[in-house]
Amino acid sequence: MKKRTLAEALIASHSPDPADVGAICSVKVDFAFTNDITGAPAINAFRDMGAEKVFDRERCAILPDHFTPNKDIAAAEQAKTARLFAQDQGMLYWEVGRVGVEHAFLPEKGYILPGDLVFGADSHTCTGGALGAFSTGVGSTDLAAVWALGESWLMVPPTVRVLFSGRRRPWITGKDLILALLGRLGTQGARYKAFQFEGGALADLPMDDRFTVANMAVEGGAKAGLFVPDEKTLAYAGARAARPFTALFPDEGAFYAETVEIDVTSLEPQVAFPHSPANVRSVGEASGVDVDQVFIGSCTNGRLRDMALAARLLRGRQVRDGLRCIIIPASYEVWSESLRRGYLTTFAEAGAVVCTPTCGPCLGGHMGILASGERCLATSNRNFVGRMGHPGSELYLASPLVAAATALTGHITDPREILSEEELKEVEGDEH
Amino acid sequence: MKKRTLAEALIASHSPDPADVGAICSVKVDFAFTNDITGAPAINAFRDMGAEKVFDRERCAILPDHFTPNKDIAAAEQAKTARLFAQDQGMLYWEVGRVGVEHAFLPEKGYILPGDLVFGADSHTCTGGALGAFSTGVGSTDLAAVWALGESWLMVPPTVRVLFSGRRRPWITGKDLILALLGRLGTQGARYKAFQFEGGALADLPMDDRFTVANMAVEGGAKAGLFVPDEKTLAYAGARAARPFTALFPDEGAFYAETVEIDVTSLEPQVAFPHSPANVRSVGEASGVDVDQVFIGSCTNGRLRDMALAARLLRGRQVRDGLRCIIIPASYEVWSESLRRGYLTTFAEAGAVVCTPTCGPCLGGHMGILASGERCLATSNRNFVGRMGHPGSELYLASPLVAAATALTGHITDPREILSEEELKEVEGDEH
Repeated sequence: MKKRTLAEALIASHSPDPADVGAICSVKVDFAFTNDITGAPAINAFRDMGAEKVFDRERCAILPDHFTPNKDIAAAEQAKTARLFAQDQGMLYWEVGRVGVEHAFLPEKGYILPGDLVFGADSHTCTGGALGAFSTGVGSTDLAAVWALGESWLMVPPTVRVLFSGRRRPWITGKDLILALLGRLGTQGARYKAFQFEGGALADLPMDDRFTVANMAVEGGAKAGLFVPDEKTLAYAGARAARPFTALFPDEGAFYAETVEIDVTSLEPQVAFPHSPANVRSVGEASGVDVDQVFIGSCTNGRLRDMALAARLLRGRQVRDGLRCIIIPASYEVWSESLRRGYLTTFAEAGAVVCTPTCGPCLGGHMGILASGERCLATSNRNFVGRMGHPGSELYLASPLVAAATALTGHITDPREILSEEELKEVEGDEH
Repeated sequence: MKKRTLAEALIASHSPDPADVGAICSVKVDFAFTNDITGAPAINAFRDMGAEKVFDRERCAILPDHFTPNKDIAAAEQAKTARLFAQDQGMLYWEVGRVGVEHAFLPEKGYILPGDLVFGADSHTCTGGALGAFSTGVGSTDLAAVWALGESWLMVPPTVRVLFSGRRRPWITGKDLILALLGRLGTQGARYKAFQFEGGALADLPMDDRFTVANMAVEGGAKAGLFVPDEKTLAYAGARAARPFTALFPDEGAFYAETVEIDVTSLEPQVAFPHSPANVRSVGEASGVDVDQVFIGSCTNGRLRDMALAARLLRGRQVRDGLRCIIIPASYEVWSESLRRGYLTTFAEAGAVVCTPTCGPCLGGHMGILASGERCLATSNRNFVGRMGHPGSELYLASPLVAAATALTGHITDPREILSEEELKEVEGDEH
């Protein structure tokens, strides 16, 4: 029998076609969603193709998260179109106040599960790969076709096996792992390939960090970024599943197009410099860089452990005078649990802005847009020219630890300058 | 000696000229501020008039509150201009995360005080009248001249004495008082006049409600809306004063252009219908009106007591499915104290959005803009066509009690349908 990588196994289990690398396969889709931006064009396409009802209203969703709560009239009209369509279809929809950034909210609520094949009209749909789901971003038109048919097609990608070896130190987060990988491979290094993340250094990597790693797979050009399910995966999904699921695993002896090994033992905190997520250096090389704003949040790093890390750094300290520190928990659940644990109090006492869940400034949406000449350190995923505002602004990407340390000093800062290794180990022990 | 109304006494104490009604007086200004929107034009005017330094850096301020945290690139550029000017001048400035809506933040921090004469480049500067300050809105150019000179000029307005008589019931808030007055007089009823609010029904009116009343004086065309200082005023200001102050009072036997009496004993909760804050009816007449959104916040009703009232209604209940309930505490202090008291937990558990302090949707800024055909019940101050978004949207104005009740049912609702009179009395007892 053919030995399959995890990506191949996931596609094969959803397709009548032989899931050989390079083959185009019809696939059944387990879950298909858009957000408030990609919703309206998907709805238009759905109607243009003469479709009437979504294939399964429990497997089709719209999430208002990008320009919501409504930023302006155009955003309000988009959100209205999405809301009315969802109501009319009886499909999954949650209103602001009860939702969050799609890639945080959907796994959290058990709508994306191990073994799934998921299409989302947003490039960071690859986040679901942390659960061992083949979860990938498509355009609004393709998504509309999935809503209509419950099916689509995929070319089976070759798999790049990424082995994170060695011992991960407490100041090294999922963000540092994926930035290190992007620094190694570049933004085109995995174009139309699937990452399969493995290695001893991942065993104790919290789920929230795994979402961060999978989330940025697309920054390397990958079609998907897959973690092989383990006990953590199954415990996370089992506690949240909105429907039954069956985890899949790669076969021993599967063929990998490439294997990349990264020993994380001596890895330094990583920072992506402008204007590419692959323009990565160690935090020490960024230490002279002053910033005007720090943003902690987004589908990449707006989860509970990210809030915990930021809170540990900011606790009892003050955001540097004149710096805007904007913290946006990525979902209602993260916001509420952060409140319960005292993180929101810590943030406010430190002088940080705490906003309701939204994609916010990550994509230049709202809630923290940059002016010309301004520089921001963000925990988000892309630092292309003008990504967070004016084309003359600059964006650096790093972990919540580096971000919070930077908010305290006003220049890009190694978290070990703020907390001792012992203190950082305590944070690490706070598993989410 | 001439008998003076409070407005006349305040102007006389700041002017070398005889402060007779209709006379144009030079006045010394105690405090002069702009926000992020009116800041940039004031700064341009300041430079155009050849000014170099503000007259007193402890009495000149810029507050980022309207389109901040930066909504878009234009907002970011405005905020940057304001920030850099403030830094260069060494004048008062607070960054997002440490500030709030100007008319909530400045009295709260003791920058507007009894006996003051205050100019602000925002029409709701009249809010400061709750403290017995002559506080009035001017254009950015006039404000720039005040920054340069510490002086300006005023025509002394005639005074309309407003007597709120009778016994105020627990479900009647400051918002109901001012809406009742606006309903009586219309939006032009006090054009270039000063309101002087008095009467037995005000004795137990909490300071937060007084700010609401004074805030909407301008909706009646008034130049100022003044409360005569009493023990509550002096206790509030005394605990917060950023500098010494001397309260002023009207003389017995002063001449009033008009006296309006409103007996509040049998007053019903008030609702302003589209498209005028003076198009006021009782809540019962609005009971058939469905809404898509509720907004609780703004310089009118974003203070601690407003949060307390909303929390009491929402506690243990759920925002109506499909309705957006957006709650924005008006300042960092209100946000933090609301968190400490459990109000933010209540809001989140009810399914409301809780945002960082900002003017937000009130002026169609951001964080809850309306689409065409949408209807909103808001605690803010103006419901002109398109005020909160699309010109085809509709806006109703009411108290936080009516707003929270409406958020629960989805149609404009009398709070007495949700809470008993006894329960409403308990809320009233929670003085702020």
